[in-house]
Amino acid sequence: MAPAGVAVANGSGSADTTAAFKEVYSKLKEEMLEDPAFEFTDESLQWIDRMLDYNVLGGKCNRGLSVIDSYKILKGVDVLSKEETFLACTLGWCIEWLQAYFLVLDDIMDNSQTRRGQPCWFRVPQVGLIAVNDGIILRNHISRILQRHFKGKPYYVDLIDLFNEVEFKTASGQMLDLITTHEGEKDLTKYNLTVHRRIVQYKTAYYSFYLPVACALLLAGENLDNFGDVKNILVEMGTYFQVQDDYLDCFGDPEFIGKIGTDIEDYKCSWLVVQALERADEDQKRILFENYGKSDPACVAKVKDLYKELKLEEVFHQYEKESYNKLIVDIEAQPSKAVQTVLKSFLHKIYKRDK
Amino acid sequence: MAPAGVAVANGSGSADTTAAFKEVYSKLKEEMLEDPAFEFTDESLQWIDRMLDYNVLGGKCNRGLSVIDSYKILKGVDVLSKEETFLACTLGWCIEWLQAYFLVLDDIMDNSQTRRGQPCWFRVPQVGLIAVNDGIILRNHISRILQRHFKGKPYYVDLIDLFNEVEFKTASGQMLDLITTHEGEKDLTKYNLTVHRRIVQYKTAYYSFYLPVACALLLAGENLDNFGDVKNILVEMGTYFQVQDDYLDCFGDPEFIGKIGTDIEDYKCSWLVVQALERADEDQKRILFENYGKSDPACVAKVKDLYKELKLEEVFHQYEKESYNKLIVDIEAQPSKAVQTVLKSFLHKIYKRDK
Ligand SMILES: [Mg+2]
Ligand SMILES: [Mg+2]
Ligand SMILES: [Mg+2]
Ligand SMILES: [Mg+2]
Ligand SMILES: [Mg+2]
Ligand SMILES: [Mg+2]
Repeated sequence: MAPAGVAVANGSGSADTTAAFKEVYSKLKEEMLEDPAFEFTDESLQWIDRMLDYNVLGGKCNRGLSVIDSYKILKGVDVLSKEETFLACTLGWCIEWLQAYFLVLDDIMDNSQTRRGQPCWFRVPQVGLIAVNDGIILRNHISRILQRHFKGKPYYVDLIDLFNEVEFKTASGQMLDLITTHEGEKDLTKYNLTVHRRIVQYKTAYYSFYLPVACALLLAGENLDNFGDVKNILVEMGTYFQVQDDYLDCFGDPEFIGKIGTDIEDYKCSWLVVQALERADEDQKRILFENYGKSDPACVAKVKDLYKELKLEEVFHQYEKESYNKLIVDIEAQPSKAVQTVLKSFLHKIYKRDK
Repeated sequence: MAPAGVAVANGSGSADTTAAFKEVYSKLKEEMLEDPAFEFTDESLQWIDRMLDYNVLGGKCNRGLSVIDSYKILKGVDVLSKEETFLACTLGWCIEWLQAYFLVLDDIMDNSQTRRGQPCWFRVPQVGLIAVNDGIILRNHISRILQRHFKGKPYYVDLIDLFNEVEFKTASGQMLDLITTHEGEKDLTKYNLTVHRRIVQYKTAYYSFYLPVACALLLAGENLDNFGDVKNILVEMGTYFQVQDDYLDCFGDPEFIGKIGTDIEDYKCSWLVVQALERADEDQKRILFENYGKSDPACVAKVKDLYKELKLEEVFHQYEKESYNKLIVDIEAQPSKAVQTVLKSFLHKIYKRDK
């Protein structure tokens, strides 16, 4: 999953938008607690109420808020009608719900400790593996919300298909990540750029970058089949975003980022280790094989020293510049100015970020 | 989840139907392995291949096969066209996939050992909690299959909404089961008939009994809104089915059923303990409180003795007779003879079953 503590779209959403967005959360939660498709008991009502607040809230909501921003740009207006605002916020929350679902389950599979500054949901006393079912409920809420507010709209089927396809891609990327890490623990050479790219693209880019814009396009009455390039550009941006994340995990300022990176200790298929493997001679490879994935700080230090020796900081800055330039060229080749603006706003929120 | 080793619809599906059904599995699996929405690696292809065979196969496929049987009855034909057979089998497999998804996750949450005579998927070496994501993939496959084979059909949206609603009800029933068992472990009096009924209805009845018939109705071009009674009857039948299961767990012949019941040891909110609580005097209640949920065979024996003292066998046979009579009356009040036949075929497959 994409890292929690990092903004996908820093500064998106004005104060007004944010307030409207939060209000819609309360309404959607209320609806979930009154869903006639289940006969709730008092205990189950309390459970869902707490589970939603714990897992859906607490992030920056950049993905969700960017639906509203993108929709405004596509429509070419500064202010949306009440109805339009509500629908855009609702789709934004569906993405936040999706993210919550992925994170709850990812933390179980990764045996993580904390998420968004609090214990992972499955670590809360009395929750435990009930969290698996809570993840499922979060996913189901999306279908309930879409049915309630979009059934009858001409794009209802497209919306459902979109969420299904993006969910499938994410789960497939997650599978690849899990299998690759297992293999990688036995043989580091299983990690390479192709594998890294595929994991990142599927696990993070589709739901974090493509999904918000695709939601806005559907709201604006567009047919997603006509926006294949937009999809590719956003997936490219999402990949670049994850490479930054891998870079910052090692070279970022922990004070500033708000957490200490552990990709080396965790045997992650990080962009850095992949780059190191590409550039290392036999002696340097041996250092990697012997020290990668160990929690001993001396081993971590050896890996970091090797990264510096191989000048991975420079390699990254070069990659960053090239990605940016390539993205700008691709964006400016888009026929629609509004689409260009949407894409540039995403790009400028992440370019050269340091947290 | 509904118990695995027990037939929902014993003997459904002729040899021909079963052969056709199996053939469709191979085709659907092939499609899942060639899904262009993900770029598979060799390892991930092998993983999915094995995961599907391990979890989707191995059951009796009664739920799946009953889609085909019900569809034939509704159409009033003995033989379906090739296309009709394929579509009915495909929906049948979607239900089997759904069941596999529920079972994989349920076994993780219940920390179970075996399923369908083999270790639970998460207990297979190298699988572990990757099974959580495999559960998700199984669920996602249903959406992929529906999109591929039903998009464009007039009932596509109804099909998606149906699967979503049934999944939501099942997950909600699962939540209620998990929360109630937690509460019950502290205070057995939390278990009562209302709670039992609600858990069973949502956790088992909708997906095991209503869903196959609803799929057949949609295939036959019907509008599910006109079949509210049919839904209620099937949910009632599913509830009766689960009460039988609870009864057989204690009073059935382990040789014949193929497994040894552990509901008493597991602190289950079983129909039997609920009936015992309703009928017990203060002394008998004390026996229950002191011995229920303990793995010590002496404790289990005390609970079983109490069940016999309270004549729960008779209570069950009385319940069984009344349920049957009530169901027959309700079924015969249905305006459509074909619908009556479908419902009776379900009922006669489960009435007075002893395994
Ligand atoms: Mg994680
Ligand atoms: Mg992970
Ligand atoms: Mg990271
Ligand atoms: Mg279980
Ligand atoms: Mg269970
Ligand atoms: Mg049972």
